[in-house]
Amino acid sequence: MPTIPKITLVGAGPGDPDLITVKGLKALQTADVVLYDALANEALLSHAPRHALKVCVGKRAGKHSIRQENIESLMVKLAFEKGHVVRLKGGDPYVFGRGHEELEFIQPYGIQVQVVPGISSAIAVPGSQGIPVTRRDVSESFWVVTATTKSGAFSQDIKLAAASSATVVILMGLKKIGEIVKAYQNIDKGNEPVMVVQNGTLPGERWVISTIDEIEEEIRKTGISTPAIIVVGKVVNLHPAIAQKIQAAAV
Amino acid sequence: MPTIPKITLVGAGPGDPDLITVKGLKALQTADVVLYDALANEALLSHAPRHALKVCVGKRAGKHSIRQENIESLMVKLAFEKGHVVRLKGGDPYVFGRGHEELEFIQPYGIQVQVVPGISSAIAVPGSQGIPVTRRDVSESFWVVTATTKSGAFSQDIKLAAASSATVVILMGLKKIGEIVKAYQNIDKGNEPVMVVQNGTLPGERWVISTIDEIEEEIRKTGISTPAIIVVGKVVNLHPAIAQKIQAAAV
Repeated sequence: MPTIPKITLVGAGPGDPDLITVKGLKALQTADVVLYDALANEALLSHAPRHALKVCVGKRAGKHSIRQENIESLMVKLAFEKGHVVRLKGGDPYVFGRGHEELEFIQPYGIQVQVVPGISSAIAVPGSQGIPVTRRDVSESFWVVTATTKSGAFSQDIKLAAASSATVVILMGLKKIGEIVKAYQNIDKGNEPVMVVQNGTLPGERWVISTIDEIEEEIRKTGISTPAIIVVGKVVNLHPAIAQKIQAAAV
Repeated sequence: MPTIPKITLVGAGPGDPDLITVKGLKALQTADVVLYDALANEALLSHAPRHALKVCVGKRAGKHSIRQENIESLMVKLAFEKGHVVRLKGGDPYVFGRGHEELEFIQPYGIQVQVVPGISSAIAVPGSQGIPVTRRDVSESFWVVTATTKSGAFSQDIKLAAASSATVVILMGLKKIGEIVKAYQNIDKGNEPVMVVQNGTLPGERWVISTIDEIEEEIRKTGISTPAIIVVGKVVNLHPAIAQKIQAAAV
């Protein structure tokens, strides 16, 4: 039987291996090759058939990794050679995942391609901490932004987001925390509650809650590092640890 | 054996029944009761045990439904009577899903409760159309907003969102389309591309793409109605149908 090339971009979700979708799991079960990111949980690889080739191609802030162009070429090459390539990506392929770039790269080759969404860390990591990104009477919108743009510059969107009433979720933001803090302080929002979560939904999860004014000091003290998600807004006060304190203070 | 009350709030995802998470599926498989929303796919009920009680409690824009307070009381009552109650909600429980309100209602009863995230329509419905909410060089953030706030008033956040460079995803917005259009036109963004998707990821999916200036007319012509998601921003041009036209015009 000739090899029919096929590529499925699958969102692996935020970390917990049971947070992949059933559709994503089914794709893995028929994989001949799995190309996975550092942010995708390796426990998921056990769902792929024994014969499947498993290649780690991923990328974690500041660490050595295969270049994006090479990942794309590798996907196409292996699809022609082996058949069904599952590209397993952390979170959702379309939330800062470069999924659309990979899709565009693949399409001219005429390979059958499908994108399976994943649970985005932007929503599920605060959620796993008991913090909803939206809550009636507290926040009726949320803004997901990356602090590090393609050019490496600080995103102008964060300044606009700070000025809004939205819950602001910042991905890949820890290295820009100083600039994020300034964006809020410049508009007198130094008291805004903020949470930083490292390794959200995983056993090694660590977090800290503070205010914009004090978060840098707290990050230093706790040693929290990447990969981390930053959540800014009144919903942070709904965290069980904070909600209890607020209730107690009101008594 | 005494009944141990337990409640799991599960995000059913955007519509396609295979877009539930493995964790959500496992919760369903051990359910004694399933309370499901109109927006959750009924095909998912087949994963619950035969003995499980299945109750539709849900809510769809403009249609008759059980009041939120009654859903909450019912959850608690059935947990004490029957055991494991799975509350199956469309999308993600924390994205305009009132999941946190339900959690707060349950907690004083001392019932074990867990929240399982779901694929949010806000990201997956545009994604299923080939539109990424983020894309390098096109949009480096996205803002998810509901047009209808608790008070029924038009959300002020949409005006801020319109002024930003974010991809704006509007849930429950179709009835406010006139006001949304004005928010963009008022800041000279009448040419901004916009997409409306009804029943995203389901067999009955329908969609239309246009500009802010012309979208109301297009909605009238196509008869697209609720439940629908509105996406505004340059990423809409990445839709396969539009991308082809843009390429052809550039040749």
